[in-house]
Amino acid sequence: MPELRKDPVTERWVIIATDRARRPTDFTRQTVTLKGGFCPFCPGNEAKTPPEILAYRNGNGGERDKPGWTVRVVPNKYPALGIEGGLDRRADGMFDKMNGIGAHEVIIESPEHAQTLASMPEKRIEDVLWAFRDRIVDLKRDRRFKYILIFKNHGEAAGATLEHSHCQLIALPIVPSRVAEELQGARRYYELKERCIFCDIIHQESGDESRVVAENAGFLTVSPYAPRFPFETCILPKKHESAFENANSGDFADLAKMIKLVIGKMDAVLERPAYNMVLHTEPMSGPDSADYFHWHVELMPKLTKVAGFEWGTGFYINPTSPEEAARYLREAVVEAPELAVR
Amino acid sequence: MPELRKDPVTERWVIIATDRARRPTDFTRQTVTLKGGFCPFCPGNEAKTPPEILAYRNGNGGERDKPGWTVRVVPNKYPALGIEGGLDRRADGMFDKMNGIGAHEVIIESPEHAQTLASMPEKRIEDVLWAFRDRIVDLKRDRRFKYILIFKNHGEAAGATLEHSHCQLIALPIVPSRVAEELQGARRYYELKERCIFCDIIHQESGDESRVVAENAGFLTVSPYAPRFPFETCILPKKHESAFENANSGDFADLAKMIKLVIGKMDAVLERPAYNMVLHTEPMSGPDSADYFHWHVELMPKLTKVAGFEWGTGFYINPTSPEEAARYLREAVVEAPELAVR
Repeated sequence: MPELRKDPVTERWVIIATDRARRPTDFTRQTVTLKGGFCPFCPGNEAKTPPEILAYRNGNGGERDKPGWTVRVVPNKYPALGIEGGLDRRADGMFDKMNGIGAHEVIIESPEHAQTLASMPEKRIEDVLWAFRDRIVDLKRDRRFKYILIFKNHGEAAGATLEHSHCQLIALPIVPSRVAEELQGARRYYELKERCIFCDIIHQESGDESRVVAENAGFLTVSPYAPRFPFETCILPKKHESAFENANSGDFADLAKMIKLVIGKMDAVLERPAYNMVLHTEPMSGPDSADYFHWHVELMPKLTKVAGFEWGTGFYINPTSPEEAARYLREAVVEAPELAVR
Repeated sequence: MPELRKDPVTERWVIIATDRARRPTDFTRQTVTLKGGFCPFCPGNEAKTPPEILAYRNGNGGERDKPGWTVRVVPNKYPALGIEGGLDRRADGMFDKMNGIGAHEVIIESPEHAQTLASMPEKRIEDVLWAFRDRIVDLKRDRRFKYILIFKNHGEAAGATLEHSHCQLIALPIVPSRVAEELQGARRYYELKERCIFCDIIHQESGDESRVVAENAGFLTVSPYAPRFPFETCILPKKHESAFENANSGDFADLAKMIKLVIGKMDAVLERPAYNMVLHTEPMSGPDSADYFHWHVELMPKLTKVAGFEWGTGFYINPTSPEEAARYLREAVVEAPELAVR
C-alpha cells in the first residue's frame, strides 16, 4: 500500500510509492565524469573570470587574480541579476514588477580541477564554508537584498555548465518561495508549540533512528520524513540557530566533515550522481525568525529523469521510502581518496 | 536590465532575464518523434491494459475491451495510489500520514497511434474533454477524494513512458500544493476586491494584447505575466467558472479548437517539443471556491534542460520574456495535417 506523507514544515503531501520500491540500482544513473578541456576556474586562467571579490591564499601571500589561492570568489560572468541600480518597485497594470537587482557570484572551491566535496580534504571544505560566511556578512550590509541563496549544481544533469567544482551565490531583493514556505510553516508551528519545528524533528529523528544517515558532534543528517525525491537528505545543526553566518569555527569543522561524509556516501551508493545542494538560512530582514527558523543544508541527487508534471502540480511521487534510502546511505562505507593538503 | 515579476495569483517572483534573451532556436530542442514497437494502447491490444472504465464508440456499438472505440479510459497498470480501502489518517510521532488511496487512470485519446492533440480532428479532442468530464463527475461521488488532477506528459523529456497520445487522471485525498497556492491567492484577492483574479487578468490581457497568444469565442490563451518557463501558456475560459466539469458542449467545442491551435503553434515555433499539460479546476469539497476560482489549462513545453536548483528553491530564471514568447506563438502559422474523422 503506498503512503501519503506530509512534510511537517511546508505541509506538502507526497506519495511514497513503496509498492514499486526502487533501490539504488533501479535508477538510470549518470555518473558524473570529467571531460576536461579549457577551464576558466583553473589557476593561471584568472583573467578569464571577472576580477575576484574574495580569495583565500596560503600565508596571505600572492597577488590578486593570480594563482596561489585555495578558494576564490568571482562575479558570475553571465549574471541573472544586475548589481547596479535601485529596485524601482512599480505596478504594470494589475501586475507587480521591479528591476532585476541582485548579486550573482561563483565560489570556486579548489584550485584543483578534479576535486569534489567528496574528495577534498575537510580543511579545504571548511574554507569554502568560511567563504560562504564572509560573502553573506558582506552582502548583508546592502539593504536592497532580502535573501542570500547559496547552492551547488554538480554534474551536467543537475545544471552545472562548468565541471570544476563550484557553488553559486545569488543575493535577492525577495525571499524565494520555497524558503518563504519553510519560514511560514516554522512560524505557524512556533506560534502553536513555542518550539522550533526543526529542533523537534532532530529530537524525534535521533530517537527513532530509521531515517538517520549520519551524526557527528554538531550535525545530524536525515532522510526527511516526506521527501520529494529519492535519496534526498537534509543536514541539520543540532544546536538551534537561524542564521548560517552565526556558526562558529567548531560548527564549520563539523559541517565540513559531515558534507564530505554524506556526499561520499551518496557517491558510493548512487555511483557519483549529479546532485544539487542548497543552503537554507534565514532572510536578512523581515520578521524576526531567530526563534523559529533553523538553518540547514539540503542535498538532492538527480536520479529521476523528469519533473514537468511536478512543476505543474507541486505533487511528488517518490519511489524510494526515506527509511530505505537512509538505510542504504547509513550502511555505505566511504573510501574516498583524500588528496593531501597542499 | 533583467526584471523581477510577481505572479499575481501565487505571489511567486521570477526573474525575466531579458539581457540574455533566448529565442526559440536558442533552445536545444528535442523534437518528439515516434519510435514505434508494440503499443498496449493500440486497438487490438485491449487485453494488455486493465479492463476499461469508460469508452466512447461510434454509434454506441462494439464490445467492451475490443476495438471500435474512439476514446478509452483504463486504470493505470502501475498505479501510484490504491483504489481500495480507507484513508486511515494517523500520527507517526510528530509526523502525519495516511494510506495512499486514490484513483490513477489513463485516458487514451485516439485509436490511432500517430495522432496528437495538434493533428487530431477538433471533434475528437472534444470527445477527450467529455471523457475528462465524465470521469470527474463519476469520481466526485467518492467522498474520500478531495482533488482530481488531469495532466499530460507528451514526449519522453516530459515524462511520457508510452508514445501513444494519452492523458492521466489522479484522484487524490488531498489538494496538491500548487493548486492550493492558486486557491489561496485567488481567495485573498477576492477578499480584497470582491472580484475573481483570473477574470481581472483576462480583462487586462485582452486590453493589452502584448501577451495574448490566441483568442476564440470562449477562450483566451496568454503567456502569463510572470512565467516560470519559456513559452509557457495558459488557456482561460472567458466566462467565469470554477469547475471544469460545469462547462457545456459549446465550451468544450471552443476549448478543443483552442487546444489544437495552441499546441499546433507550439509545434510550429518550437519544432514539436515535449510538453506537459495540466488542468487546474476547483477541489471537490473544502471551502466554496465558486466565486473566486477559475479553471484553466496550463501548457509547459520542456525546453530548459535542468530544474534541480528550481526544485530546491522555488526560484525561477526565465530566459524568454512572455511578451517575446507570445509574439512568436501569436504570429506562428499552423499547417497541421488533419486526418479525417473515421
